Amino acid sequence: MSDSTTVNYPTEFKGFAITDPKQWDNPKLTSYQPKNFGSHDIDIEIECCGICASELFSLKNDWSDAPLNCLSSKYGPKSQVVGHEIVGKIVAIGNDVTMYKIGQRVGLGAQAYSCLNCSRCKSNNEQYCPHAVGTYCSTYSDGYVSQGGYASHVRALDHFCFPIPDNLDSKFVGPLMCGGLTVFSPIKRNIQGIVNPKVAIIGIGGLGHMAIMIANALGAEVTAFSRGNSKKDDALKMGAHHFVATSEDKNWMTNYIDSFDLILNCASSTKALQLNDLLPCLKVNKKFLSVGLPHKDEEFDLKPIQFFSNGCTIGSSKLGSREEAIELLSLASKYDIKPWIQEIPICENGVHEGLTKLDNGDVKYRFVLTDFHRFFNTGK
Amino acid sequence: MSDSTTVNYPTEFKGFAITDPKQWDNPKLTSYQPKNFGSHDIDIEIECCGICASELFSLKNDWSDAPLNCLSSKYGPKSQVVGHEIVGKIVAIGNDVTMYKIGQRVGLGAQAYSCLNCSRCKSNNEQYCPHAVGTYCSTYSDGYVSQGGYASHVRALDHFCFPIPDNLDSKFVGPLMCGGLTVFSPIKRNIQGIVNPKVAIIGIGGLGHMAIMIANALGAEVTAFSRGNSKKDDALKMGAHHFVATSEDKNWMTNYIDSFDLILNCASSTKALQLNDLLPCLKVNKKFLSVGLPHKDEEFDLKPIQFFSNGCTIGSSKLGSREEAIELLSLASKYDIKPWIQEIPICENGVHEGLTKLDNGDVKYRFVLTDFHRFFNTGK
Repeated sequence: MSDSTTVNYPTEFKGFAITDPKQWDNPKLTSYQPKNFGSHDIDIEIECCGICASELFSLKNDWSDAPLNCLSSKYGPKSQVVGHEIVGKIVAIGNDVTMYKIGQRVGLGAQAYSCLNCSRCKSNNEQYCPHAVGTYCSTYSDGYVSQGGYASHVRALDHFCFPIPDNLDSKFVGPLMCGGLTVFSPIKRNIQGIVNPKVAIIGIGGLGHMAIMIANALGAEVTAFSRGNSKKDDALKMGAHHFVATSEDKNWMTNYIDSFDLILNCASSTKALQLNDLLPCLKVNKKFLSVGLPHKDEEFDLKPIQFFSNGCTIGSSKLGSREEAIELLSLASKYDIKPWIQEIPICENGVHEGLTKLDNGDVKYRFVLTDFHRFFNTGK
Repeated sequence: MSDSTTVNYPTEFKGFAITDPKQWDNPKLTSYQPKNFGSHDIDIEIECCGICASELFSLKNDWSDAPLNCLSSKYGPKSQVVGHEIVGKIVAIGNDVTMYKIGQRVGLGAQAYSCLNCSRCKSNNEQYCPHAVGTYCSTYSDGYVSQGGYASHVRALDHFCFPIPDNLDSKFVGPLMCGGLTVFSPIKRNIQGIVNPKVAIIGIGGLGHMAIMIANALGAEVTAFSRGNSKKDDALKMGAHHFVATSEDKNWMTNYIDSFDLILNCASSTKALQLNDLLPCLKVNKKFLSVGLPHKDEEFDLKPIQFFSNGCTIGSSKLGSREEAIELLSLASKYDIKPWIQEIPICENGVHEGLTKLDNGDVKYRFVLTDFHRFFNTGK
């Protein structure tokens, strides 16, 4: 219990934290006080955690004009641990938790709390609850700023921890918890009830590669869009039925006008997209949805007339509900959905390597930090 | 048959035309050759015609970067007659027309033709047919540029002429044919199946005032939005259940967060709108739709993060289908929906007056050009 990586649980958690966005790529091992334990809270002893592009925006503080949230945390650390594609084992449950027992394996995504009482929470839309708290960088009502999953443990509301089917390997489940759910929800909602739905997935990266697999498993005819042809073979292996390299085939549009029930933009920016070409490929009254949230300064470059050829709309989709997370895990279990991951054993160098490579786009297609038990001397 | 307003039908139509967008407010009486008569065409001897804001954009050529379409018409006039809120009597039918007989009263809106053969035409979305031809300023496949309803007669495909219930007065039906249908379609499509739907209508003008009446008749709880309070009494009389003056009540938002199943923007521009305040008033995954098409240079001022509080989308809706037009007329007949109109007997001065007053926003709430029979010596 005396070496520097061993954790004094339950009074302390340990994780890789920054205090200054300029050091975004060098989180340092730190010890910190967890949030006060609520009667519906659960502690997860973490086994592995995916690296999501949200982490880059959050650590660099690119979504905000204010200083890092953690600096104004009422108690707990003034540093920030990120990570929200978490899998681990329950090691503590609050007095009012009835849905879980200690020892169960669960996943936790990008949301750690909601009120469970408002109209949104009661209609499977808790991701849009006005009282939602994210798994990291978000402020709880008691003033604590949430700390994420590049850590020994994480604390969250029971509702946002999802039971994992036994046949799924933890390291493949991690990326489903944020990225997978983020694409599952809009695909499911927008193809429901449609015979032979057709879905376009733009951007074959962390989100996009899971979107291809999930849309395919949901029965959609999937067209993958990328700039060049370099990811064509991968996309087809993931389950895309068609592949379009927009910069190689200038006439691609002629085959796709009036085709899609949904265009899901998984690229982290809309700036490089030719919306004039893409929007007419939607069927009447369908949606173009972005799931990657870009830099706070990015604006849509759009004119109202661009929607007139088919009455389409454009917008965003955020995460998914608990019900959808459980459906996704069931789908993954049934169709053996495995994100294409690269494992990195957790340590300071590993976290640095994962973040910097992701920042350079040098990942195929998702990093997962693993070996938490060995590093933190947990898993006993 | 010799005076200047009498028409030599069927070889000529007469109407009020411009040849130069700079003279947009001074259409002159002109005689012109109609489009070649197709086997599914119908000639309407016009009784009255509403003045729609589309006319201002079309006459000023504000939606286009090219010269007026009519200048390149393969035959027929090199001048342009507008008007697409038309009511009149059928005076000729093509050989293949089976749905109508000569003498019937019909309405014609902003669309005069579509292929009736594509997936859109076959799914009650003919307004989005790629071969759609507008009632004016649009080029038919034979090269003729369509001429509108500030005229003695108009020629259109039978499918786009709608039978009018006997209890409706023509002058109240005119505005329903474009403006009414344009708001009916998105309201109907977006509240269908919802218990106690709530609809926000932005902009109490030509489109907005009809939207309030129609949304009310469709069973929605209607909230009318205007900048000031000057139209409050009118809006409530039209059928709004609530009224918001956004520039008078700075805290209006607190009552409307997470409220609406649809926000229908009937203002001709989105520039003056506070989308940051309006979008959070939508329920989860609902739509903000614009029906007024603004100047071609206008852009949305939007960031992706603005959609994140509720996963809403933004876009446009265009006209409506024949099925919807007939539903609307039935609704108008049942609920006695009467647009608030100001009649102007048709003549050069009348057309000038209607266009210039509309351009100045000096209308409550729709001008309808009337007395066509007297002016053109028709209606016999």
